[in-house]
Amino acid sequence: MRTMPEILAVKRDGGELYSDDFRFICSNIEKIPREQLGAFLMACQINGMSTEETSLLTKEMLNAGEKMPVNQSRVDKHSTGGVGDKMSIILAPALRASGAIVPMLAGRGLAHTGGTIDKLESIPGFNTGLSLDEMLQNPCFISRQTEDIAPADRILYSIRDITATVPQIGLITASIISKKAAEGLEKLVLDVKCGKAAFMKNQDDAVALAKSMVRTGTDLGMEVTAQVTEMDNPIGMMFGNSHEIVECIDCLKGNGPEDTMELVYSQADALGYDIRNSIRDGSALEEFKKMCVRQGVDSEVIESLVKNPWNVLPRANKTIEITAKSSGYIATIDALAIGEALCNLGAGRTGDKFEIDHGIGAELIKTIGDPIESGEAWVRFDVNSELDESIINSIEESIEISENEVKKIGRILQIISI
Amino acid sequence: MRTMPEILAVKRDGGELYSDDFRFICSNIEKIPREQLGAFLMACQINGMSTEETSLLTKEMLNAGEKMPVNQSRVDKHSTGGVGDKMSIILAPALRASGAIVPMLAGRGLAHTGGTIDKLESIPGFNTGLSLDEMLQNPCFISRQTEDIAPADRILYSIRDITATVPQIGLITASIISKKAAEGLEKLVLDVKCGKAAFMKNQDDAVALAKSMVRTGTDLGMEVTAQVTEMDNPIGMMFGNSHEIVECIDCLKGNGPEDTMELVYSQADALGYDIRNSIRDGSALEEFKKMCVRQGVDSEVIESLVKNPWNVLPRANKTIEITAKSSGYIATIDALAIGEALCNLGAGRTGDKFEIDHGIGAELIKTIGDPIESGEAWVRFDVNSELDESIINSIEESIEISENEVKKIGRILQIISI
Repeated sequence: MRTMPEILAVKRDGGELYSDDFRFICSNIEKIPREQLGAFLMACQINGMSTEETSLLTKEMLNAGEKMPVNQSRVDKHSTGGVGDKMSIILAPALRASGAIVPMLAGRGLAHTGGTIDKLESIPGFNTGLSLDEMLQNPCFISRQTEDIAPADRILYSIRDITATVPQIGLITASIISKKAAEGLEKLVLDVKCGKAAFMKNQDDAVALAKSMVRTGTDLGMEVTAQVTEMDNPIGMMFGNSHEIVECIDCLKGNGPEDTMELVYSQADALGYDIRNSIRDGSALEEFKKMCVRQGVDSEVIESLVKNPWNVLPRANKTIEITAKSSGYIATIDALAIGEALCNLGAGRTGDKFEIDHGIGAELIKTIGDPIESGEAWVRFDVNSELDESIINSIEESIEISENEVKKIGRILQIISI
Repeated sequence: MRTMPEILAVKRDGGELYSDDFRFICSNIEKIPREQLGAFLMACQINGMSTEETSLLTKEMLNAGEKMPVNQSRVDKHSTGGVGDKMSIILAPALRASGAIVPMLAGRGLAHTGGTIDKLESIPGFNTGLSLDEMLQNPCFISRQTEDIAPADRILYSIRDITATVPQIGLITASIISKKAAEGLEKLVLDVKCGKAAFMKNQDDAVALAKSMVRTGTDLGMEVTAQVTEMDNPIGMMFGNSHEIVECIDCLKGNGPEDTMELVYSQADALGYDIRNSIRDGSALEEFKKMCVRQGVDSEVIESLVKNPWNVLPRANKTIEITAKSSGYIATIDALAIGEALCNLGAGRTGDKFEIDHGIGAELIKTIGDPIESGEAWVRFDVNSELDESIINSIEESIEISENEVKKIGRILQIISI
């Protein structure tokens, strides 16, 4: 068995780590001095991780924590994060309505990207902190990772965040796949975002990450498909926390925007479930209501939410519209600019601040392909104060208007499976 | 000003750090999360440090702590560490006897190498922990670094030790030169050890380190010479803590081994002092006695020490001699094997154990070039228990006997200055 300094020396010199090394790290994660963990992550980041190392680290992260029992109809999805990326909240109840068990562990927003957990916490009473026992008794839930599931990931992730070691494919793979494997899944679909507003800016990187996760997940016995999808433009029409819950309810009622539903349907298809019928007949919406109630929402609140979401959800009290500076057709909308503006306005976290304002958000009045006149409003922000000129400028500049008609194209760029 | 994650991202990607970045690290060293310091050191280790970065880090390490005033006759030496490397204890009083001021900050043993501080602590009453005030009032001392001198080095060094980031030339340079510059020196001589028992195993690495330290020290206004010296064979005839004090007193009395005195004289020469006379006339020995008394040794103890060292110094009670397995001339003695044996026997530190036994040591009965018969003893170990067979074997194998006569050669391989 190698000691931690020996493990670090191997990785420093570009050598290969083994099962024992990763087991030592994952099972002693609380006791290992933080400086050694920082050095370990930086060595992995700079010198890279082999396929074999990625797989071993993932297994040891998984095995160091609690696991849910593997079961044939357990399915889930994971997205690497984007702007307007609300599909999980639609997909989970729709899959449940089609007979799947959906044990969905989700996360909070990171930088300019939204987080499923933050969005659900817009709903009064929604408990995102289920215990492992509650998870096991629940055929469909969306909850945070517990302390006991992949504890090594929780600690390594918090260190990666402050040591410039987030963008390493092996480390990203181990973090995501260890948690998903702990859910005891039969099938997993991965939405690997690619573009300006994604963590992977170009398709090569996104495909490399997708392949790494598919391979590693398959090694752990899951059937995994990855969809590499476009993340230059925001998804759907509504962004923010409350705002995205509103759009999810629209989607569950069958009134969702085309691009959002394309992604939801293709994710369900990849898991072997056709959910179109459950959306059409209202059973997906019923499952959403049941899930909310099981996770602590009052049944009267949920009825009111589904009937008129803004009666229940927090919404900032000031509306500001941004207008176009020229006429033509909307060619692109910069999702990163929209996401960063919302984050800075308080819908997401910057610096050490943990609290977010669930009522801050934005809604597109027009989207890609729509004709627009100079001076016409194309997006509406719900905020609590006047917007800074710099934010207004960045939003105004986030839209590209073409003289010619613009054809909408699908978001799915590439599908990867084994 | 860049934040710590930004600094880490630059170094991670092979970029160049600036003054502000190093100042941020050195002046906030206590507050920066340890995982960030570990990641910083690993990024420096893997991606290297430019000459400019090395110089900037050294300056910021120096400036973040207390400094002694610069003064024309302040001189010192530093050695990168070896086996039998006792020259500092002879050199400091001899330089003082020749008119120099010698503010020598020294360290403890590291792995198989001995440490000047540990050796001096063999002398009953010798205080190696002078305050900065005591140092300033003292024309010649050998003491440990205080908490306030180069505090960033103290913390970074303790982290390097456990994160596999010791062998990086820029980091080594900054650690050594920042402390030496804090002594307010006019001149500095560096003994860069090279060989099996040194941290630098080959001459190219030793020369690169020597050049880096000479350049950086010169940048800080010191006159610096580096001597790259052979460290395959042990220096002198005695090794261990008490044992090396005994040999130092012999040297100060003018009875030192040729190789040891070659190094002491050439170090003094490099600082512009010819100390041969002060050794001959006994004034160096007198200064040694004065230094000991100023650092807390009772004057009767010091007289007794100088008269018969073993009356005062601790010595293990069991003597074991090791014999030659063939006849001929001693060609080489493996200093690493001797140093590791002594360290494992308790003369040095292994693992977390801080206490060492100052009475454990070894004395060569014969040395390089001497004729020897099979079965004749060539080294004597003073120990507290029987030796393990594995230690005996390793010592027996540490000597190489040639059929032909062996010519002694000098230890100085290369001299580097600007």
